[in-house]
Amino acid sequence: MKILDLRVHSIAIADPPLRSSYGLHQPYALRSILELVGEDGCVGLAETHGGDAIAKGFDLLKPRVVGQDPFRLAGVLIDLVEDLRGDRSQTHRVPGENPFDANQRLYSALEIAALDLCGRALKKPVCDLLGGPVRTKVPFSAYPFYKHKGGGGEGPDARPDEYGEALTPEALVKQVRDLKAKYGFHDIKFKTGVLDPEIEVETVRQLARAFPGTPVRMDPNSAWTVETSIRIGKTLAKDFGPGGYLEDPTAGMDNMAAVRKGLLAAGVDVPLGSNVAVTSFADLKDCVAKDAVQVVLCDVHYWGGLRAVQQLGKLCKTFGLGMSMHSNSHLGISLMAMAHAAAVTPHLTYACDTHYPWSATSDEVVEGGRVPIVGGNVAITDRPGLGVTLDRDALARGEERYKNCPYRKRDDEAEMRKHVDPNWKRTLPRW
Amino acid sequence: MKILDLRVHSIAIADPPLRSSYGLHQPYALRSILELVGEDGCVGLAETHGGDAIAKGFDLLKPRVVGQDPFRLAGVLIDLVEDLRGDRSQTHRVPGENPFDANQRLYSALEIAALDLCGRALKKPVCDLLGGPVRTKVPFSAYPFYKHKGGGGEGPDARPDEYGEALTPEALVKQVRDLKAKYGFHDIKFKTGVLDPEIEVETVRQLARAFPGTPVRMDPNSAWTVETSIRIGKTLAKDFGPGGYLEDPTAGMDNMAAVRKGLLAAGVDVPLGSNVAVTSFADLKDCVAKDAVQVVLCDVHYWGGLRAVQQLGKLCKTFGLGMSMHSNSHLGISLMAMAHAAAVTPHLTYACDTHYPWSATSDEVVEGGRVPIVGGNVAITDRPGLGVTLDRDALARGEERYKNCPYRKRDDEAEMRKHVDPNWKRTLPRW
Repeated sequence: MKILDLRVHSIAIADPPLRSSYGLHQPYALRSILELVGEDGCVGLAETHGGDAIAKGFDLLKPRVVGQDPFRLAGVLIDLVEDLRGDRSQTHRVPGENPFDANQRLYSALEIAALDLCGRALKKPVCDLLGGPVRTKVPFSAYPFYKHKGGGGEGPDARPDEYGEALTPEALVKQVRDLKAKYGFHDIKFKTGVLDPEIEVETVRQLARAFPGTPVRMDPNSAWTVETSIRIGKTLAKDFGPGGYLEDPTAGMDNMAAVRKGLLAAGVDVPLGSNVAVTSFADLKDCVAKDAVQVVLCDVHYWGGLRAVQQLGKLCKTFGLGMSMHSNSHLGISLMAMAHAAAVTPHLTYACDTHYPWSATSDEVVEGGRVPIVGGNVAITDRPGLGVTLDRDALARGEERYKNCPYRKRDDEAEMRKHVDPNWKRTLPRW
Repeated sequence: MKILDLRVHSIAIADPPLRSSYGLHQPYALRSILELVGEDGCVGLAETHGGDAIAKGFDLLKPRVVGQDPFRLAGVLIDLVEDLRGDRSQTHRVPGENPFDANQRLYSALEIAALDLCGRALKKPVCDLLGGPVRTKVPFSAYPFYKHKGGGGEGPDARPDEYGEALTPEALVKQVRDLKAKYGFHDIKFKTGVLDPEIEVETVRQLARAFPGTPVRMDPNSAWTVETSIRIGKTLAKDFGPGGYLEDPTAGMDNMAAVRKGLLAAGVDVPLGSNVAVTSFADLKDCVAKDAVQVVLCDVHYWGGLRAVQQLGKLCKTFGLGMSMHSNSHLGISLMAMAHAAAVTPHLTYACDTHYPWSATSDEVVEGGRVPIVGGNVAITDRPGLGVTLDRDALARGEERYKNCPYRKRDDEAEMRKHVDPNWKRTLPRW
């Protein structure tokens, strides 16, 4: 089987005004939907970061992709990910806008689309092309955010605000309650780095009280100093609970290591997670040497695809690191790629993150609508490939939305200046 | 597709009287040939260590294997390799007789047989089930040994002595010349730890002079003290040349680290390879922390199969380690599994080891006879699976040989006592 065509669809999907230390989500998140067309009529899908830059990247790679055997594509393009350059940290970049992982992102999406294409051709689920599942129900976490009013989208395309404003501890508890009720999530991954740390500490405490026995993972995205990080780590250790962690409290490998050291010196063994200090294999040697991070967040979209996540899992297991999974605003194709990666990675030691509940049902591009999350889990089925197919009308609407919206790359800072503070800049550390 | 049967054939193959620090090779090497029978008539093959213990191990696993989908077998059996226990070093065990990696060996062979079965069913080479080849010619090394007279086998089954006795520097140069002439090997992996170190040093020097520009990798299998290791490393650094290394000069992770430190202190950056101090993922954390080893030798037979070798490659790349490939006495099925592993592992930074030239052509169990090594390379072809099928008559002869020979496990020490010194014991360090 040869690849006849690579089609890239730039789409926009409504995204609610979620806050993080990067700023404020724009009314639309940008995604790229890939179609790898096989000569037998099968089509392999992948979803990844959106915007003009990555679409252009795929265009440039197209001559290397078309004509290849999808079973060999990962090997053919291996040069895109084999070069491990030095400092790759994307501390100051929102995911999808880190120039250091541009090639990884292109490679990852193509690897996933090739796996989907092969799976469809063989009528086998993707996990079976990777050794077979070690789990067929993949647990995801509730992912609460501090949030302004609004459901995402703009003007006549604005969406209903399903979860409402959430800028207080009480509102966050309600948001988690709603997310849990709707999806059955168990664990909580909580995006912080937004409000004064004392409010965020109080929010975690209220979450811990409201949902006893539930691990809380707190992610301020590098917003704090080393001192603040240590202080809050000590303060909240019990509230995070077993299975909880503190993710990227501060920026940079050395600062992360200092936080770890400070916490251990105080007798507090709260693991530090990361998808900022550590975003690629190139970061791991330094990370291990410095004990800077104890839980690595993988991501099928920028670590190199599904096989890379398997490899990362083995590496984390080998070095005594935990592994969790990072998420961005995404739809069902990404969700299924994440689920298949988790299914074939024994050493995934935490429930995965997902922004999926924050996307609008009407924007889903997979046939049949949203992929169900039941009891907090996404099920791996026997359906071929990733298990989803394209709803072409929905895809066309997404492309139309992309054309009509003014956004061409993710810029949470600009959105903050527009809606919150005309002089807002991302300052690290802020507290 | 379901697996209908798992057949294990214990065979013996003639093995010349090769010397190492473990002792002397017995007249027969023992191998296990696996057949994984699919319901569509396809059969997946694997070859691994032989003897009664491993055959029994497969028997015990059979109920977990039969009835499974070969695409899912690696996931189903993952518990066999996910548990990384503590000290796994096989310093004092010949490969195949290390109790710590018994489960890894069983798993590896089953993973390989399942990949071969899937490849046959899909009419695709195994490398294409692992992302596709990054190289289609896999380089192997000449593997000279100090050797007694004889070609292996016993009594009327004794084989012609193709290479003759080799217990002097001059004889080793001739042996390498013969191996190179016959197979086109470039690099030299030289098994030592057998004679007085001064003779071995002189042998390396003569090899370096006879084959200028050829990397020499010297492997005394833990025979030396730290002091001897440092001394010889310093003495021979130039003779090893770029691409050469010193493999397991001494026993144990701490001693290896001491050798490295001693060499670096003397300004000598000869990498230390290992397949003794480091034989499993469980050894790597300590190895990296101590900088004990700079080149890890993978082995498809006991690291966990082909995917594990890919994972190990990524890990070695990540931590700045080189990767080479270990070999044991083997036939063509193993050779092809090794070649496919190398084909899908970008970060294989050295030509692989192979004992293949030491096996007798008449003992090969693959149809068509010996797999060709041309220009030092094994070619990856488009043939399905591993690319080889069973010659059932040859297999039957191998089983007959197994039944008739007195050996049920590898024991190089016993063989030394029989032929060289009735009181011989493996003493580490010896020099």
